[in-house]
Amino acid sequence: MATTSTRKALGKDLIRLAGSRAVFTAPEDLYAFQSDATHYFARNIPDAVVLPEDTDAASAVLAYAYEHEIPVTPRGAGSGLSGGCTPVAGGIVLDTKRLNRILGINRGNMTARVQAGVVLEDFHRAVEKQGLFYPPDPQSMSVCTLGGNVATRAGGPRAVKYGTTGNYVLGVEAVLADGSVIQAGSDCVKQSVGYDLTHLFTGSEGTLGLVTRVSVRLLPKPTHRRTALVVCETPDQAAQVVSGIIAAGAVPAMLEYVPQAALSLMNSIIRPPVAAQGEAYLLMELDGTEARVAEEAEILRSMALDLGAEEVRIVEDEREAATYWKARSRLYPMILTMAKKVISEDVTVPRDRIPEFVRAVAEISGRLGILIGLGGHAGDGNMHPTILFTDLSPEMEQKAEAAIEDIVKKGLELGGTISGEHGIGLHKSRFLEWELGRAQLTAMKRIKAALDPKGIMNPGKLWT
Amino acid sequence: MATTSTRKALGKDLIRLAGSRAVFTAPEDLYAFQSDATHYFARNIPDAVVLPEDTDAASAVLAYAYEHEIPVTPRGAGSGLSGGCTPVAGGIVLDTKRLNRILGINRGNMTARVQAGVVLEDFHRAVEKQGLFYPPDPQSMSVCTLGGNVATRAGGPRAVKYGTTGNYVLGVEAVLADGSVIQAGSDCVKQSVGYDLTHLFTGSEGTLGLVTRVSVRLLPKPTHRRTALVVCETPDQAAQVVSGIIAAGAVPAMLEYVPQAALSLMNSIIRPPVAAQGEAYLLMELDGTEARVAEEAEILRSMALDLGAEEVRIVEDEREAATYWKARSRLYPMILTMAKKVISEDVTVPRDRIPEFVRAVAEISGRLGILIGLGGHAGDGNMHPTILFTDLSPEMEQKAEAAIEDIVKKGLELGGTISGEHGIGLHKSRFLEWELGRAQLTAMKRIKAALDPKGIMNPGKLWT
Repeated sequence: MATTSTRKALGKDLIRLAGSRAVFTAPEDLYAFQSDATHYFARNIPDAVVLPEDTDAASAVLAYAYEHEIPVTPRGAGSGLSGGCTPVAGGIVLDTKRLNRILGINRGNMTARVQAGVVLEDFHRAVEKQGLFYPPDPQSMSVCTLGGNVATRAGGPRAVKYGTTGNYVLGVEAVLADGSVIQAGSDCVKQSVGYDLTHLFTGSEGTLGLVTRVSVRLLPKPTHRRTALVVCETPDQAAQVVSGIIAAGAVPAMLEYVPQAALSLMNSIIRPPVAAQGEAYLLMELDGTEARVAEEAEILRSMALDLGAEEVRIVEDEREAATYWKARSRLYPMILTMAKKVISEDVTVPRDRIPEFVRAVAEISGRLGILIGLGGHAGDGNMHPTILFTDLSPEMEQKAEAAIEDIVKKGLELGGTISGEHGIGLHKSRFLEWELGRAQLTAMKRIKAALDPKGIMNPGKLWT
Repeated sequence: MATTSTRKALGKDLIRLAGSRAVFTAPEDLYAFQSDATHYFARNIPDAVVLPEDTDAASAVLAYAYEHEIPVTPRGAGSGLSGGCTPVAGGIVLDTKRLNRILGINRGNMTARVQAGVVLEDFHRAVEKQGLFYPPDPQSMSVCTLGGNVATRAGGPRAVKYGTTGNYVLGVEAVLADGSVIQAGSDCVKQSVGYDLTHLFTGSEGTLGLVTRVSVRLLPKPTHRRTALVVCETPDQAAQVVSGIIAAGAVPAMLEYVPQAALSLMNSIIRPPVAAQGEAYLLMELDGTEARVAEEAEILRSMALDLGAEEVRIVEDEREAATYWKARSRLYPMILTMAKKVISEDVTVPRDRIPEFVRAVAEISGRLGILIGLGGHAGDGNMHPTILFTDLSPEMEQKAEAAIEDIVKKGLELGGTISGEHGIGLHKSRFLEWELGRAQLTAMKRIKAALDPKGIMNPGKLWT
């Protein structure tokens, strides 16, 4: 980190490159850029924050940082859950918030081009106004940016039917560490032209360059949707229902696993509340044409009841249905208010291994004597064990660390992966080699060194 | 290339590493490994061909080749159309044909693991027997391998609804140039764990390593399908029908653009033949549930007739429908028999630019005075202008080169890409920088050097 005088000189240089409106160096302005939503990773304030208004400015700042070997941390909304945009080495935070224009929505080609700082929910609204549909829906969609979604390969509940951000990105414009600009991919839905740098940047967490523009493919907007709740006696039964309906071709747009404790919390919003008589709940949304939704609802009902589910509730009233999804999206904020600190885990297991994973998390929670909530996107196996800190003692921290380690190990043992949609950031770097193995980790580090030989892009992330 | 005596020594060493059954060094055995389906690129026979029976043998051969700096050309079925597996520098051809086991189909998780040499059609049959579905369907599916599909990011007619190989690959096992083995990706449908090496290898054309195993996601098998033919007056009208039905949410599984000349050829197989009274035809297959297929057929019929199409024929009889698709898959072989030499181009344009592209190809064909057939996967904009050589004169070669250059330029001018699904290989390397730009090409070369510092993997491909 810089001294006050070098920080002043840095500010002057950055203003020359990006304009005075784009540069912040006063400590009170920098304070908010210490971390993403994982505030417990905050350590340093950056030396400067730059909000470039176009790719040229971003390129000029990166060329300068490269020359002077100044660390650069790319940032979207800062809503990440892995510490990905924490400026651990100080330097410059390069914030994309002002790259916020939707550059074009092409109905004939069913694609769109947006700048990296466009807020996801704004983009949803814009395409839906044209009868189109962009499925990725991380729960932070009211603030998170398309560029951040690309950086973390973000998912969301609709991934079960529609996949994650990686399934929609067709191309990116990115500024590399040395300031050079590449246009990877295209606006075509089919392309086989050299290495797929588009998907190499997708999920690279700002360590290879700054994504400034994104091209995505769009779908036609489903005309109908319907919410359903399945009340199951046990997690096993819930998992059977999940496998059964998906294998029958009735793939819901969203398929959330909700344990009893979470449903009780959600009941403060669901109207009318649900009698919480089962151990496990499946909350789903079916979408498509009217006929298709009706057909899927029928498959769901008969299959779930055949498998012994206690109740299948198809919510006909739209306002009632909305209370379920509002409750689901408020679940994490509600949990945040209940505990001193919350860590949301993000392990994904093959979807047929969910019951084993649920049992293992219960065992870990019991053995360590700590509270672990467990919801997740059951349809795609992405589970979010959530550790609730009842206090902030070193003992509690140690137990949480132990729980995370056990959860991650169990996920890998079941053929799973240590992160489904949050990314690695700071939070998971110590587990990276467990999943990747030495040879693969070495290959990744070589790619990093090839594209960013001075190591200025988001240092300390993915690995140290 | 090696002398006879060094070739003998090489053979001995390879037998020690991979077993005598796996190694071929006699010229008569090597002859067939000079090229892929683009025989006109054949120059050299390799010094040896190795067909490893497991990953360990492949790893041992690569470690040896790396130590001795011997070029290695990975090969699947050799059905590629870009010269991708042509051993331009001699050395070892590493053929995956014996890595041909389906390792597991997981119904509960809707995924499968296969060795790289599994033939696509065999895999289709195996998953469909279990009520599952693997959409990618290059026309060479009766011979091509999953590993080759990954290497070229292969597509096929069903890409319009279902995407290409890249949309299904979840993970790969690959042997790097130095013999080390990585397990990239996973069997989970969601993952955000470091760089996406799975998709970096997908489309890398054997230049980064040898893919030995592939994990893919599967879909439920559609229960119903129906073939439809739309007879259009002009290519413009056909393009309007394509955009219209896709925007209405009726996305066919296959949507082929067939010009009049091609339909006339196909009529030798279609029973009963079609009266070829339009300039442009759209051949489609709708798939899904019975209700959904009926709904889409209705949308297609009313929209196509509203847009002025001459006729919409929904083929109810399954045997009749099969003759259309048989005719489509035989089209390329039929064209091959008509000409002295055939070059199949593979430009993709945004789908709303197809009419402009069709007009441009007609103009190029007229201006140069050569025959260019033009079919393609209209639904995703992937067009295959096909140059028919009436003789093998240098003048004809020059005209073909000029035509290819003009076609590629036009594709790029329309916002398209120089290859949709065949890859770059030898055939397109001279155009690569036009599409990628200098900075991106440099980035790709750096990645190549990082993972294969001695440049032994498939030298001379993508770029020289």
